[in-house]
Amino acid sequence: MSEFTATDRTKARRHPERGTYDRDTIYSILDEAFVCHLGFIVDGAPFVVPTNYVRVGDKLFLHGSTASRLMRTLGSGAPFCLSVTLLDGIVLSPTATGHSVNYRSVVVMAKAEQLIDPQEKLAAMRDFVEYVIRGRWAEVRPPTEQELKATMVLSVPLVEASAKVRTGFAIDKGDEYAGAGWTGVIPFKWEAQTPVPDPRGNAELAIPANLLNYTRPQ
Amino acid sequence: MSEFTATDRTKARRHPERGTYDRDTIYSILDEAFVCHLGFIVDGAPFVVPTNYVRVGDKLFLHGSTASRLMRTLGSGAPFCLSVTLLDGIVLSPTATGHSVNYRSVVVMAKAEQLIDPQEKLAAMRDFVEYVIRGRWAEVRPPTEQELKATMVLSVPLVEASAKVRTGFAIDKGDEYAGAGWTGVIPFKWEAQTPVPDPRGNAELAIPANLLNYTRPQ
Repeated sequence: MSEFTATDRTKARRHPERGTYDRDTIYSILDEAFVCHLGFIVDGAPFVVPTNYVRVGDKLFLHGSTASRLMRTLGSGAPFCLSVTLLDGIVLSPTATGHSVNYRSVVVMAKAEQLIDPQEKLAAMRDFVEYVIRGRWAEVRPPTEQELKATMVLSVPLVEASAKVRTGFAIDKGDEYAGAGWTGVIPFKWEAQTPVPDPRGNAELAIPANLLNYTRPQ
Repeated sequence: MSEFTATDRTKARRHPERGTYDRDTIYSILDEAFVCHLGFIVDGAPFVVPTNYVRVGDKLFLHGSTASRLMRTLGSGAPFCLSVTLLDGIVLSPTATGHSVNYRSVVVMAKAEQLIDPQEKLAAMRDFVEYVIRGRWAEVRPPTEQELKATMVLSVPLVEASAKVRTGFAIDKGDEYAGAGWTGVIPFKWEAQTPVPDPRGNAELAIPANLLNYTRPQ
Protein backbone atom coordinates (compact mmCIF):
# COMPACT_ATOMS: atom_id res chain seq x y z
CA MET A 1 0.00 0.00 0.00
CA SER A 2 1.53 3.27 -1.13
CA GLU A 3 1.16 6.09 1.37
CA PHE A 4 1.89 9.79 1.46
CA THR A 5 4.08 10.88 4.36
CA ALA A 6 1.98 12.72 6.94
CA THR A 7 3.34 16.17 7.70
CA ASP A 8 2.50 18.75 10.35
CA ARG A 9 0.24 20.36 7.77
CA THR A 10 -1.62 17.28 6.52
CA LYS A 11 -1.86 15.19 9.69
CA ALA A 12 -5.45 14.82 10.96
CA ARG A 13 -5.50 16.41 14.42
CA ARG A 14 -9.20 16.30 15.16
CA HIS A 15 -10.54 12.75 14.83
CA PRO A 16 -7.19 11.25 13.80
CA GLU A 17 -9.00 7.93 13.25
CA ARG A 18 -10.60 9.53 10.18
CA GLY A 19 -7.28 10.53 8.64
CA THR A 20 -5.65 8.49 5.90
CA TYR A 21 -2.56 8.92 3.76
CA ASP A 22 -3.29 5.98 1.48
CA ARG A 23 -2.66 6.96 -2.11
CA ASP A 24 -5.48 4.83 -3.58
CA THR A 25 -8.04 6.33 -1.18
CA ILE A 26 -6.88 9.88 -1.90
CA TYR A 27 -6.87 9.33 -5.67
CA SER A 28 -10.33 7.73 -5.67
CA ILE A 29 -11.78 10.77 -3.88
CA LEU A 30 -10.01 13.15 -6.26
CA ASP A 31 -11.24 11.18 -9.29
CA GLU A 32 -14.88 11.15 -8.19
CA ALA A 33 -14.97 14.96 -8.01
CA PHE A 34 -13.84 17.58 -10.48
CA VAL A 35 -14.40 20.75 -8.46
CA CYS A 36 -11.92 21.79 -5.78
CA HIS A 37 -11.56 24.82 -3.52
CA LEU A 38 -8.19 26.55 -3.72
CA GLY A 39 -6.89 28.60 -0.81
CA PHE A 40 -4.20 31.18 -1.42
CA ILE A 41 -2.96 34.49 -0.05
CA VAL A 42 -3.18 37.90 -1.74
CA ASP A 43 -1.89 40.99 0.07
CA GLY A 44 -1.90 39.06 3.33
CA ALA A 45 -5.55 38.01 3.06
CA PRO A 46 -6.75 34.43 2.59
CA PHE A 47 -8.88 33.74 -0.50
CA VAL A 48 -10.82 30.62 -1.46
CA VAL A 49 -11.90 30.06 -5.07
CA PRO A 50 -13.69 27.02 -6.55
CA THR A 51 -12.26 25.66 -9.76
CA ASN A 52 -11.92 22.51 -11.85
CA TYR A 53 -8.98 20.13 -11.88
CA VAL A 54 -7.88 16.90 -13.46
CA ARG A 55 -5.70 14.20 -11.91
CA VAL A 56 -3.15 12.54 -14.17
CA GLY A 57 -0.94 10.05 -12.36
CA ASP A 58 0.81 11.68 -9.41
CA LYS A 59 -0.09 15.21 -10.36
CA LEU A 60 -3.04 17.51 -10.89
CA PHE A 61 -3.55 20.05 -13.63
CA LEU A 62 -5.32 23.37 -13.07
CA HIS A 63 -6.18 25.80 -15.83
CA GLY A 64 -7.64 29.22 -16.29
CA SER A 65 -7.28 32.55 -17.98
CA THR A 66 -3.81 34.09 -17.95
CA ALA A 67 -5.59 37.24 -16.75
CA SER A 68 -7.09 35.68 -13.60
CA ARG A 69 -5.76 36.65 -10.19
CA LEU A 70 -5.94 33.02 -9.08
CA MET A 71 -3.83 31.77 -11.98
CA ARG A 72 -1.32 34.59 -11.76
CA THR A 73 -0.88 34.01 -8.02
CA LEU A 74 -0.50 30.24 -8.31
CA GLY A 75 1.55 30.52 -11.50
CA SER A 76 4.11 32.65 -9.66
CA GLY A 77 4.88 29.70 -7.39
CA ALA A 78 2.92 30.87 -4.33
CA PRO A 79 2.03 28.09 -1.88
CA PHE A 80 -1.61 27.07 -1.87
CA CYS A 81 -4.00 24.56 -0.37
CA LEU A 82 -6.38 22.48 -2.48
CA SER A 83 -9.44 20.93 -0.86
CA VAL A 84 -11.95 18.45 -2.31
CA THR A 85 -15.02 17.40 -0.34
CA LEU A 86 -17.69 14.81 -1.14
CA LEU A 87 -20.73 14.98 1.15
CA ASP A 88 -22.09 11.46 1.63
CA GLY A 89 -24.76 11.88 4.27
CA ILE A 90 -26.32 13.51 7.30
CA VAL A 91 -25.90 11.53 10.53
CA LEU A 92 -28.88 11.74 12.91
CA SER A 93 -27.92 11.07 16.49
CA PRO A 94 -30.10 10.85 19.61
CA THR A 95 -28.17 13.84 21.02
CA ALA A 96 -27.81 17.39 19.69
CA THR A 97 -24.01 17.36 19.65
CA GLY A 98 -23.87 13.81 18.28
CA HIS A 99 -25.15 14.89 14.87
CA SER A 100 -22.55 14.78 12.13
CA VAL A 101 -22.00 14.41 8.41
CA ASN A 102 -20.49 11.55 6.46
CA TYR A 103 -17.93 12.80 3.99
CA ARG A 104 -14.75 12.06 2.12
CA SER A 105 -12.32 14.95 1.82
CA VAL A 106 -8.81 15.49 0.51
CA VAL A 107 -6.36 18.25 1.25
CA VAL A 108 -3.25 18.94 -0.84
CA MET A 109 -0.56 21.42 0.16
CA ALA A 110 1.34 22.40 -2.94
CA LYS A 111 3.08 24.78 -5.26
CA ALA A 112 2.40 24.80 -8.98
CA GLU A 113 4.52 25.08 -12.08
CA GLN A 114 3.32 26.63 -15.31
CA LEU A 115 3.38 24.49 -18.41
CA ILE A 116 5.15 26.51 -21.10
CA ASP A 117 5.53 24.07 -24.00
CA PRO A 118 2.44 24.38 -26.27
CA GLN A 119 2.32 20.62 -26.88
CA GLU A 120 2.35 19.91 -23.14
CA LYS A 121 -0.38 22.50 -22.63
CA LEU A 122 -2.46 20.98 -25.41
CA ALA A 123 -2.04 17.49 -23.92
CA ALA A 124 -3.16 18.78 -20.51
CA MET A 125 -6.22 20.43 -22.03
CA ARG A 126 -7.06 17.14 -23.68
CA ASP A 127 -6.73 15.50 -20.26
CA PHE A 128 -9.16 18.08 -18.84
CA VAL A 129 -11.85 17.37 -21.41
CA GLU A 130 -11.42 13.58 -21.24
CA TYR A 131 -11.39 13.61 -17.42
CA VAL A 132 -14.85 15.15 -17.36
CA ILE A 133 -16.29 13.33 -20.40
CA ARG A 134 -14.42 10.36 -21.79
CA GLY A 135 -14.25 10.36 -25.59
CA ARG A 136 -15.18 14.02 -25.86
CA TRP A 137 -11.89 15.35 -27.25
CA ALA A 138 -12.39 13.65 -30.62
CA GLU A 139 -15.79 15.32 -31.04
CA VAL A 140 -14.89 18.97 -30.47
CA ARG A 141 -12.80 21.63 -32.17
CA PRO A 142 -9.37 21.66 -30.50
CA PRO A 143 -7.98 24.91 -29.07
CA THR A 144 -6.58 27.46 -31.48
CA GLU A 145 -3.11 28.88 -30.98
CA GLN A 146 -4.73 32.02 -29.58
CA GLU A 147 -6.91 30.05 -27.15
CA LEU A 148 -3.84 28.12 -25.98
CA LYS A 149 -1.95 31.38 -25.40
CA ALA A 150 -4.81 32.82 -23.35
CA THR A 151 -4.92 29.74 -21.12
CA MET A 152 -2.53 29.13 -18.26
CA VAL A 153 -2.06 25.47 -17.34
CA LEU A 154 -0.51 24.64 -13.97
CA SER A 155 1.02 21.33 -12.98
CA VAL A 156 0.66 20.43 -9.30
CA PRO A 157 2.78 17.54 -7.99
CA LEU A 158 0.94 15.40 -5.44
CA VAL A 159 3.52 15.20 -2.66
CA GLU A 160 1.86 16.46 0.53
CA ALA A 161 -1.69 15.14 0.70
CA SER A 162 -4.12 13.46 3.06
CA ALA A 163 -7.75 12.41 3.23
CA LYS A 164 -10.38 12.35 5.94
CA VAL A 165 -13.27 9.92 5.75
CA ARG A 166 -16.29 9.60 8.04
CA THR A 167 -18.75 6.77 7.49
CA GLY A 168 -21.48 5.05 9.46
CA PHE A 169 -23.91 5.97 12.19
CA ALA A 170 -23.74 8.21 15.27
CA ILE A 171 -21.31 7.20 17.98
CA ASP A 172 -23.36 8.03 21.06
CA LYS A 173 -23.45 5.70 24.02
CA GLY A 174 -26.11 3.00 23.91
CA ASP A 175 -28.24 4.46 26.71
CA GLU A 176 -28.80 7.64 24.66
CA TYR A 177 -30.95 5.75 22.16
CA ALA A 178 -34.10 5.61 24.31
CA GLY A 179 -35.23 9.07 23.12
CA ALA A 180 -38.03 10.11 20.79
CA GLY A 181 -35.92 10.96 17.74
CA TRP A 182 -35.45 8.73 14.71
CA THR A 183 -31.76 7.88 14.33
CA GLY A 184 -29.82 6.89 11.26
CA VAL A 185 -28.21 8.34 8.14
CA ILE A 186 -29.69 10.24 5.20
CA PRO A 187 -27.33 9.31 2.33
CA PHE A 188 -26.59 11.92 -0.32
CA LYS A 189 -25.45 11.61 -3.92
CA TRP A 190 -24.50 14.05 -6.62
CA GLU A 191 -26.66 12.74 -9.41
CA ALA A 192 -26.66 13.67 -13.07
CA GLN A 193 -30.10 14.43 -14.49
CA THR A 194 -31.32 14.00 -18.07
CA PRO A 195 -29.13 16.05 -20.44
CA VAL A 196 -30.73 19.15 -22.00
CA PRO A 197 -29.82 19.77 -25.67
CA ASP A 198 -28.46 23.16 -26.73
CA PRO A 199 -31.05 24.61 -29.18
CA ARG A 200 -28.19 25.67 -31.47
CA GLY A 201 -26.81 22.11 -31.67
CA ASN A 202 -27.48 19.50 -34.34
CA ALA A 203 -30.98 18.25 -33.49
CA GLU A 204 -30.31 14.97 -35.28
CA LEU A 205 -27.56 13.95 -32.83
CA ALA A 206 -28.87 11.54 -30.19
CA ILE A 207 -27.67 12.07 -26.63
CA PRO A 208 -24.65 9.75 -26.26
CA ALA A 209 -25.14 6.86 -23.79
CA ASN A 210 -22.29 7.99 -21.49
CA LEU A 211 -24.00 11.39 -21.10
CA LEU A 212 -27.45 9.87 -20.51
CA ASN A 213 -26.08 7.94 -17.54
CA TYR A 214 -23.24 10.17 -16.46
CA THR A 215 -21.22 8.85 -13.53
CA ARG A 216 -17.88 9.66 -11.88
CA PRO A 217 -15.14 8.76 -12.39
CA GLN A 218 -15.31 8.61 -16.16
CA MET B 1 -33.37 45.19 -3.66
CA SER B 2 -30.82 45.04 -0.87
CA GLU B 3 -27.24 44.70 -2.06
CA PHE B 4 -23.87 44.18 -0.47
CA THR B 5 -21.29 46.78 -1.39
CA ALA B 6 -18.75 45.28 -3.79
CA THR B 7 -15.20 45.61 -2.53
CA ASP B 8 -11.82 45.00 -4.14
CA ARG B 9 -11.90 41.58 -2.53
CA THR B 10 -15.42 40.49 -3.50
CA LYS B 11 -15.81 42.10 -6.92
CA ALA B 12 -16.02 39.55 -9.75
CA ARG B 13 -13.04 40.24 -12.00
CA ARG B 14 -13.26 37.30 -14.36
CA HIS B 15 -16.70 37.16 -16.00
CA PRO B 16 -18.07 40.22 -14.15
CA GLU B 17 -21.47 39.48 -15.75
CA ARG B 18 -21.68 36.47 -13.44
CA GLY B 19 -21.10 38.50 -10.28
CA THR B 20 -23.94 39.61 -8.04
CA TYR B 21 -24.15 41.39 -4.72
CA ASP B 22 -27.89 40.88 -4.27
CA ARG B 23 -28.62 39.82 -0.70
CA ASP B 24 -31.53 37.51 -1.61
CA THR B 25 -29.44 35.66 -4.20
CA ILE B 26 -26.52 35.25 -1.80
CA TYR B 27 -28.75 34.07 1.04
CA SER B 28 -30.62 31.58 -1.15
CA ILE B 29 -27.31 29.97 -2.17
CA LEU B 30 -26.12 29.89 1.44
CA ASP B 31 -29.42 28.36 2.60
CA GLU B 32 -29.41 25.58 0.01
CA ALA B 33 -26.00 24.34 1.18
CA PHE B 34 -24.72 23.58 4.63
CA VAL B 35 -21.07 22.79 3.89
CA CYS B 36 -18.58 25.59 3.25
CA HIS B 37 -14.83 25.74 2.69
CA LEU B 38 -12.96 28.05 5.05
CA GLY B 39 -9.64 29.58 4.03
CA PHE B 40 -7.31 30.88 6.72
CA ILE B 41 -3.62 31.37 7.37
CA VAL B 42 -1.45 29.46 9.87
CA ASP B 43 2.27 30.24 10.10
CA GLY B 44 2.11 32.04 6.78
CA ALA B 45 0.57 29.09 4.92
CA PRO B 46 -2.94 29.02 3.46
CA PHE B 47 -5.26 26.26 4.71
CA VAL B 48 -8.69 25.24 3.46
CA VAL B 49 -11.02 23.18 5.68
CA PRO B 50 -14.59 22.06 4.93
CA THR B 51 -17.09 22.60 7.72
CA ASN B 52 -20.79 23.17 8.42
CA TYR B 53 -22.48 26.50 8.98
CA VAL B 54 -25.91 27.95 9.59
CA ARG B 55 -27.25 31.29 8.39
CA VAL B 56 -29.44 33.25 10.79
CA GLY B 57 -30.47 36.65 9.47
CA ASP B 58 -27.44 38.71 8.51
CA LYS B 59 -24.92 36.43 10.13
CA LEU B 60 -23.54 32.91 9.99
CA PHE B 61 -22.66 30.65 12.88
CA LEU B 62 -19.74 28.23 12.80
CA HIS B 63 -19.02 25.70 15.50
CA GLY B 64 -16.42 23.13 16.42
CA SER B 65 -14.26 21.76 19.16
CA THR B 66 -12.45 24.31 21.30
CA ALA B 67 -9.36 22.16 20.62
CA SER B 68 -9.45 22.50 16.83
CA ARG B 69 -6.85 24.57 15.04
CA LEU B 70 -9.50 26.00 12.75
CA MET B 71 -11.68 27.20 15.62
CA ARG B 72 -8.79 28.57 17.64
CA THR B 73 -7.48 30.48 14.62
CA LEU B 74 -10.86 31.93 13.66
CA GLY B 75 -11.83 32.48 17.30
CA SER B 76 -8.78 34.70 17.78
CA GLY B 77 -10.18 37.14 15.23
CA ALA B 78 -8.00 36.15 12.27
CA PRO B 79 -9.40 37.16 8.87
CA PHE B 80 -10.76 34.30 6.81
CA CYS B 81 -12.58 33.57 3.58
CA LEU B 82 -15.70 31.39 3.43
CA SER B 83 -16.71 29.80 0.13
CA VAL B 84 -19.88 27.89 -0.75
CA THR B 85 -20.29 26.25 -4.16
CA LEU B 86 -23.28 24.48 -5.69
CA LEU B 87 -22.47 22.57 -8.89
CA ASP B 88 -25.50 22.71 -11.19
CA GLY B 89 -24.26 21.19 -14.41
CA ILE B 90 -21.63 20.38 -17.00
CA VAL B 91 -21.79 22.55 -20.13
CA LEU B 92 -20.89 20.74 -23.36
CA SER B 93 -19.66 23.09 -26.04
CA PRO B 94 -18.71 22.39 -29.66
CA THR B 95 -15.18 23.60 -28.83
CA ALA B 96 -12.65 22.30 -26.31
CA THR B 97 -12.20 25.62 -24.51
CA GLY B 98 -15.93 26.40 -24.62
CA HIS B 99 -16.73 23.69 -22.07
CA SER B 100 -17.76 25.01 -18.70
CA VAL B 101 -19.75 24.26 -15.57
CA ASN B 102 -22.96 25.82 -14.32
CA TYR B 103 -22.67 26.76 -10.67
CA ARG B 104 -23.79 29.11 -7.94
CA SER B 105 -21.07 30.19 -5.52
CA VAL B 106 -20.75 32.62 -2.65
CA VAL B 107 -17.66 34.13 -1.10
CA VAL B 108 -17.63 35.86 2.28
CA MET B 109 -14.63 37.79 3.62
CA ALA B 110 -14.96 38.00 7.37
CA LYS B 111 -13.73 37.93 10.91
CA ALA B 112 -15.56 35.99 13.60
CA GLU B 113 -16.45 36.64 17.21
CA GLN B 114 -16.78 33.92 19.82
CA LEU B 115 -20.09 33.55 21.57
CA ILE B 116 -19.35 33.47 25.30
CA ASP B 117 -22.79 33.56 26.93
CA PRO B 118 -23.98 29.93 27.44
CA GLN B 119 -27.57 30.83 26.53
CA GLU B 120 -26.45 32.43 23.26
CA LYS B 121 -24.31 29.38 22.51
CA LEU B 122 -27.20 27.06 23.24
CA ALA B 123 -29.51 29.08 20.97
CA ALA B 124 -26.94 28.92 18.15
CA MET B 125 -26.60 25.16 18.55
CA ARG B 126 -30.36 24.89 18.31
CA ASP B 127 -30.16 26.95 15.11
CA PHE B 128 -27.57 24.50 13.75
CA VAL B 129 -29.74 21.45 14.34
CA GLU B 130 -32.92 23.12 13.03
CA TYR B 131 -31.11 24.49 9.96
CA VAL B 132 -30.18 21.00 8.85
CA ILE B 133 -33.38 19.24 9.98
CA ARG B 134 -36.38 21.33 10.93
CA GLY B 135 -38.14 20.10 14.06
CA ARG B 136 -35.18 18.00 15.17
CA TRP B 137 -34.23 19.95 18.31
CA ALA B 138 -37.37 18.85 20.18
CA GLU B 139 -36.55 15.18 19.51
CA VAL B 140 -32.97 15.01 20.80
CA ARG B 141 -31.17 15.37 24.10
CA PRO B 142 -29.90 18.95 24.34
CA PRO B 143 -26.21 19.63 25.01
CA THR B 144 -24.93 19.16 28.54
CA GLU B 145 -22.99 21.94 30.27
CA GLN B 146 -19.80 19.99 29.52
CA GLU B 147 -20.68 19.60 25.83
CA LEU B 148 -21.41 23.33 25.62
CA LYS B 149 -18.04 24.14 27.21
CA ALA B 150 -16.21 21.90 24.74
CA THR B 151 -17.87 23.61 21.77
CA MET B 152 -16.74 26.93 20.35
CA VAL B 153 -19.45 28.87 18.52
CA LEU B 154 -18.40 31.71 16.22
CA SER B 155 -20.63 34.48 14.94
CA VAL B 156 -19.75 35.76 11.47
CA PRO B 157 -21.38 39.05 10.38
CA LEU B 158 -22.31 39.04 6.68
CA VAL B 159 -20.84 42.37 5.58
CA GLU B 160 -18.47 41.64 2.67
CA ALA B 161 -20.03 39.01 0.40
CA SER B 162 -20.70 38.29 -3.25
CA ALA B 163 -22.03 35.53 -5.44
CA LYS B 164 -21.17 34.20 -8.89
CA VAL B 165 -23.77 32.40 -10.96
CA ARG B 166 -23.39 30.69 -14.34
CA THR B 167 -26.45 29.26 -16.05
CA GLY B 168 -27.38 28.15 -19.54
CA PHE B 169 -25.62 26.70 -22.53
CA ALA B 170 -22.20 27.22 -24.13
CA ILE B 171 -21.50 30.67 -25.55
CA ASP B 172 -19.61 29.70 -28.70
CA LYS B 173 -20.29 31.47 -31.98
CA GLY B 174 -23.04 29.97 -34.12
CA ASP B 175 -20.74 28.64 -36.83
CA GLU B 176 -18.98 26.38 -34.31
CA TYR B 177 -22.09 24.22 -33.96
CA ALA B 178 -21.61 22.29 -37.21
CA GLY B 179 -19.30 19.73 -35.53
CA ALA B 180 -19.86 16.10 -34.57
CA GLY B 181 -20.24 16.58 -30.84
CA TRP B 182 -23.56 16.63 -28.98
CA THR B 183 -23.99 19.98 -27.26
CA GLY B 184 -26.04 20.90 -24.21
CA VAL B 185 -26.01 20.70 -20.43
CA ILE B 186 -25.91 17.74 -18.06
CA PRO B 187 -27.75 19.08 -14.98
CA PHE B 188 -26.60 17.91 -11.53
CA LYS B 189 -28.38 17.71 -8.22
CA TRP B 190 -27.38 16.77 -4.71
CA GLU B 191 -30.11 14.30 -3.92
CA ALA B 192 -31.01 12.69 -0.65
CA GLN B 193 -31.47 8.93 -0.81
CA THR B 194 -33.69 6.71 1.35
CA PRO B 195 -32.71 7.11 5.02
CA VAL B 196 -30.94 4.15 6.65
CA PRO B 197 -32.00 3.42 10.26
CA ASP B 198 -29.35 3.13 12.99
CA PRO B 199 -29.56 -0.48 14.28
CA ARG B 200 -29.32 0.85 17.84
CA GLY B 201 -32.34 3.12 17.36
CA ASN B 202 -35.96 2.43 18.27
CA ALA B 203 -37.12 0.08 15.49
CA GLU B 204 -40.73 1.09 16.05
CA LEU B 205 -40.13 4.71 15.00
CA ALA B 206 -41.17 5.30 11.40
CA ILE B 207 -38.88 7.45 9.27
CA PRO B 208 -40.34 10.99 9.54
CA ALA B 209 -41.78 12.38 6.28
CA ASN B 210 -39.34 15.32 6.14
CA LEU B 211 -36.41 12.88 6.25
CA LEU B 212 -37.92 10.55 3.63
CA ASN B 213 -38.03 13.43 1.17
CA TYR B 214 -35.22 15.60 2.43
CA THR B 215 -34.73 18.84 0.52
CA ARG B 216 -32.83 22.11 1.04
CA PRO B 217 -33.49 24.61 2.41
CA GLN B 218 -35.40 23.14 5.31
